[in-house]
Amino acid sequence: MGSNFGTYEDVIKLLNEEGVKIEDMATLVYDLQKPYVPNVTIEESCESIKSVLSKREVINTVMVGLELDRSARARRMENKKLEKILVDDQGLFGVDEVLAYTICNIYGSIALTNFGYLDKIKPGIIGIINNNHERCNVFLDDIIGAIVASAASRVAHRHDE
Amino acid sequence: MGSNFGTYEDVIKLLNEEGVKIEDMATLVYDLQKPYVPNVTIEESCESIKSVLSKREVINTVMVGLELDRSARARRMENKKLEKILVDDQGLFGVDEVLAYTICNIYGSIALTNFGYLDKIKPGIIGIINNNHERCNVFLDDIIGAIVASAASRVAHRHDE
Amino acid sequence: MGSNFGTYEDVIKLLNEEGVKIEDMATLVYDLQKPYVPNVTIEESCESIKSVLSKREVINTVMVGLELDRSARARRMENKKLEKILVDDQGLFGVDEVLAYTICNIYGSIALTNFGYLDKIKPGIIGIINNNHERCNVFLDDIIGAIVASAASRVAHRHDE
Amino acid sequence: MGSNFGTYEDVIKLLNEEGVKIEDMATLVYDLQKPYVPNVTIEESCESIKSVLSKREVINTVMVGLELDRSARARRMENKKLEKILVDDQGLFGVDEVLAYTICNIYGSIALTNFGYLDKIKPGIIGIINNNHERCNVFLDDIIGAIVASAASRVAHRHDE
Repeated sequence: MGSNFGTYEDVIKLLNEEGVKIEDMATLVYDLQKPYVPNVTIEESCESIKSVLSKREVINTVMVGLELDRSARARRMENKKLEKILVDDQGLFGVDEVLAYTICNIYGSIALTNFGYLDKIKPGIIGIINNNHERCNVFLDDIIGAIVASAASRVAHRHDE
Repeated sequence: MGSNFGTYEDVIKLLNEEGVKIEDMATLVYDLQKPYVPNVTIEESCESIKSVLSKREVINTVMVGLELDRSARARRMENKKLEKILVDDQGLFGVDEVLAYTICNIYGSIALTNFGYLDKIKPGIIGIINNNHERCNVFLDDIIGAIVASAASRVAHRHDE
Repeated sequence: MGSNFGTYEDVIKLLNEEGVKIEDMATLVYDLQKPYVPNVTIEESCESIKSVLSKREVINTVMVGLELDRSARARRMENKKLEKILVDDQGLFGVDEVLAYTICNIYGSIALTNFGYLDKIKPGIIGIINNNHERCNVFLDDIIGAIVASAASRVAHRHDE
Repeated sequence: MGSNFGTYEDVIKLLNEEGVKIEDMATLVYDLQKPYVPNVTIEESCESIKSVLSKREVINTVMVGLELDRSARARRMENKKLEKILVDDQGLFGVDEVLAYTICNIYGSIALTNFGYLDKIKPGIIGIINNNHERCNVFLDDIIGAIVASAASRVAHRHDE
């Protein structure tokens, strides 16, 4: 029997509570890969998102990132300076991106470059999260970007095999 | 005028509250570099720790890691599964090491290999933290390891210039 | 006396031989930072490129990447399969991006996201290198992207201090 | 049909030519995991090494690292300063470790810490390679360390599922 870790179902529930659905992320995977893999489908993009969300390292990272967002949102942090950095979404914070990068690292160089691109362009659900200034979302948008970028890298490699 | 970020003094205070002093970390830097840099001193090792703790990315990472430890310790987390992983210090969690690695990345390859070594050997203050099972210290020991490894890398490069 | 490592002058000479000038890279730094740092100048962007190119880890990485490009170009590689991958510039190779990433890691999260963006958009000198199919440039364009992204990150952090 | 990439067989052949056998690496995986996974076997350690050596990113990285060692060994490099750094095995070079790290990144935090430990302790085949000063082996020992560390991480995670 394994350790008592988070599961795929836990992460889906957490993301749904934040207003993020698998389909929202799969659409972005599809858009990223369509120019390189013309026969990619939405179904395959969904399947790839699900595979990424089943990996233990990804599950752990999503849980940590969302806990930090929620803790800041609820003004429950002990470190009030950190809480203010997150609530104000200060641009040079950087821990959100480096945490998200640890997901991309597992999926190789295509995941890494796609993440940087998504972070600048902020398409679809990533932009919606980023523009919602009513609540603290510092880690959420980068985590979604990393999941999408990783699923896109996985599609690229599978179509080349 | 810059953003309202954490400072060197904030981080020193946080580490002191956890029972970690600059001298505890400097001793480990000295031990790591003595075989390669015979004329290294404790003073220089202290200065190198202080320089690492002045970098914005390091300050942010220390604040995030310690907030997570304290939040788990106080049973203040919203995600109770994550809280249990941290309180039980489950071995395959991994977010603690990858977060600490983002400090080492700034200081190059010597920091990265020293970190892995410290994580296995757990000398001095790192072992003391790791063996204190009375309170949640999942992120603290890796963060101290990364600070020490980075300061050691900095000493190595400066002595070679 | 330090070890016999490569110098800033060595790297400038290597890049010039590849048709890349400091000004070409500084223009891209300026364009990246202008929206965030309105008073950034070309002079400051040049100075930031020079600072990045003075760092030992960067110098070593540039030397390794350009040696691989030149070795493939001259059909001097022992491993002919690797040589063909480089000469054909196969899209899923990935070692070029991960090597370039090790430069960005030193300069933090802004460097990492800017690199991914530049890799997709390929502006200015990066596009010129990428479209020159007459000779093997697999590592060169990613290395230039990483240098530019790192110099841009450095500008962002300095303006916020 | 996929691109014309290197294969598992290519990498096994390359490593054999360098005097490294799967069993040499599997022994180190076994030694690393025995304290944590008492029922680990040599067969399982071999299988884990083979799985790591089947991954495209690993194959590409091994090919690049060994080409650099061989090129330096044959004094075939265009950049004679880089060639001398490799032939002299200068301690602060660092590109060898960061290249090897890109293998570990795929396998998560246990791979990263094991790599740092192996790099310091240099057990078994890693020590034999490292002490062979008759020929340039700068990248080889780090690549072997990364393969072993990654296979050990894979064993740890599979036994916990």
